[in-house]
Amino acid sequence: MSARLELIALAGIPRVEPGDDLAALIARALADNDLVLRADDVVVVAQKIVSKAENRYCRLAEVEPGPRALDLARQADKDPRLVELILRESREVVRVRPGVIIVEHRCGYVHANAGIDRSNIHTDPDDPRVLLLPQDCDASARALRSGLEAQCGVAPHVLINDSAGRAWRTGTVGLALGCAGFDPLFNQIGDSDLFGNRLEVTEPAVADELAAAASLVMGQAAEGLPVVLARGLSLRPAARDASALLRPRHMDMFR
Amino acid sequence: MSARLELIALAGIPRVEPGDDLAALIARALADNDLVLRADDVVVVAQKIVSKAENRYCRLAEVEPGPRALDLARQADKDPRLVELILRESREVVRVRPGVIIVEHRCGYVHANAGIDRSNIHTDPDDPRVLLLPQDCDASARALRSGLEAQCGVAPHVLINDSAGRAWRTGTVGLALGCAGFDPLFNQIGDSDLFGNRLEVTEPAVADELAAAASLVMGQAAEGLPVVLARGLSLRPAARDASALLRPRHMDMFR
Repeated sequence: MSARLELIALAGIPRVEPGDDLAALIARALADNDLVLRADDVVVVAQKIVSKAENRYCRLAEVEPGPRALDLARQADKDPRLVELILRESREVVRVRPGVIIVEHRCGYVHANAGIDRSNIHTDPDDPRVLLLPQDCDASARALRSGLEAQCGVAPHVLINDSAGRAWRTGTVGLALGCAGFDPLFNQIGDSDLFGNRLEVTEPAVADELAAAASLVMGQAAEGLPVVLARGLSLRPAARDASALLRPRHMDMFR
Repeated sequence: MSARLELIALAGIPRVEPGDDLAALIARALADNDLVLRADDVVVVAQKIVSKAENRYCRLAEVEPGPRALDLARQADKDPRLVELILRESREVVRVRPGVIIVEHRCGYVHANAGIDRSNIHTDPDDPRVLLLPQDCDASARALRSGLEAQCGVAPHVLINDSAGRAWRTGTVGLALGCAGFDPLFNQIGDSDLFGNRLEVTEPAVADELAAAASLVMGQAAEGLPVVLARGLSLRPAARDASALLRPRHMDMFR
């Protein structure tokens, strides 16, 4: 028996604007790509277009930095207004160095700059704006799943991904910020391996692995391919969402 | 334009034994799966079968734990002989907690238990043995690439992956331990995005993303699918190998 996973970045997703119905845009792109959605497909959506559809833009001119933001901005050599937004979006500052502020986002992800983005944003140099992460990525994934079911007649798995840096390693990888329909951690703990040994640590973070896989085909510099259809995996349905991927603070050895 | 990546876990890779010629085994499995290797394919191989072919087994009965291993074994509640091997395979102990020893492996990866494996190893309960990581995964990847070129007439990209835990997040993901033929970090720093903004941090760790993608189809509990053909990406050839994915010690904020 072999196994096969196909990742198809959809052509034809238009530039997303606040208020756009992502489910409708994706349903149209699937049809234009001659793809019929199946219930075991995973629709992977780049965080950036979810944020745009949800109008998570923020004009820096409207932000008044507080004393803590001014202080951190000096340490990190960043725009104090951006730092103010980073702090508002965060629970805890984890590390500060020149050029980088790593925080625990209010949704629990440890993320540089609270995931606030300045690239691929249509912005006026005299009135710059930035794009925050969605209010609640798991809720956005659930809503998109319902929307796709309404549009296409089947409810696929949905995953919202973003690129993030890691401890110990260079480069960024796609990570799962929100998901709906499938278990983000395919739990095999307690199973036996081929030789009857009890497996010790074998809980793969499938949602993160899928987020990374989709990121490969989404590309990085162009915003043209922010939706990927992943087909071929057999995932476990589950009640847990992407928040299960967050290691509880007291069990985290690396803060 | 759409983009498409296909990951095919090869059926028919036999149980690997010390001294086996992995290139020959893979070439045969490709033929049996009616696949003709292309120069832009990536052949992803699970670390475990590389270690087995290179006979990186170690009988615990032959290991004499030193005083440091005995002390650490008490702290971590682990077999002192296993801890002795972990220390021999490492440059630095990063964290110790009951049940876990996180080290910097001598090749630079920050890895629990130095990547030493006890699962999926055919072992006698009265004479247990473990499996160490390969001596040098980048060298193993280069050798496998040459071997595949000799067998198949084209030199594909090669990637050796393993599953590992992360800071901050639960579950394991596939990571790149060694690679050959392609640039593990597709460097777009300095490019402009769709709107002419200069991209700030956009160096995706493509080798790690591919390692994660392949891990999805390799499965975890069964050793049946340790080789994955990844087809459809356009990767940059490069002189750098997987060691470029290791963040230099002095730039690492999370030790």
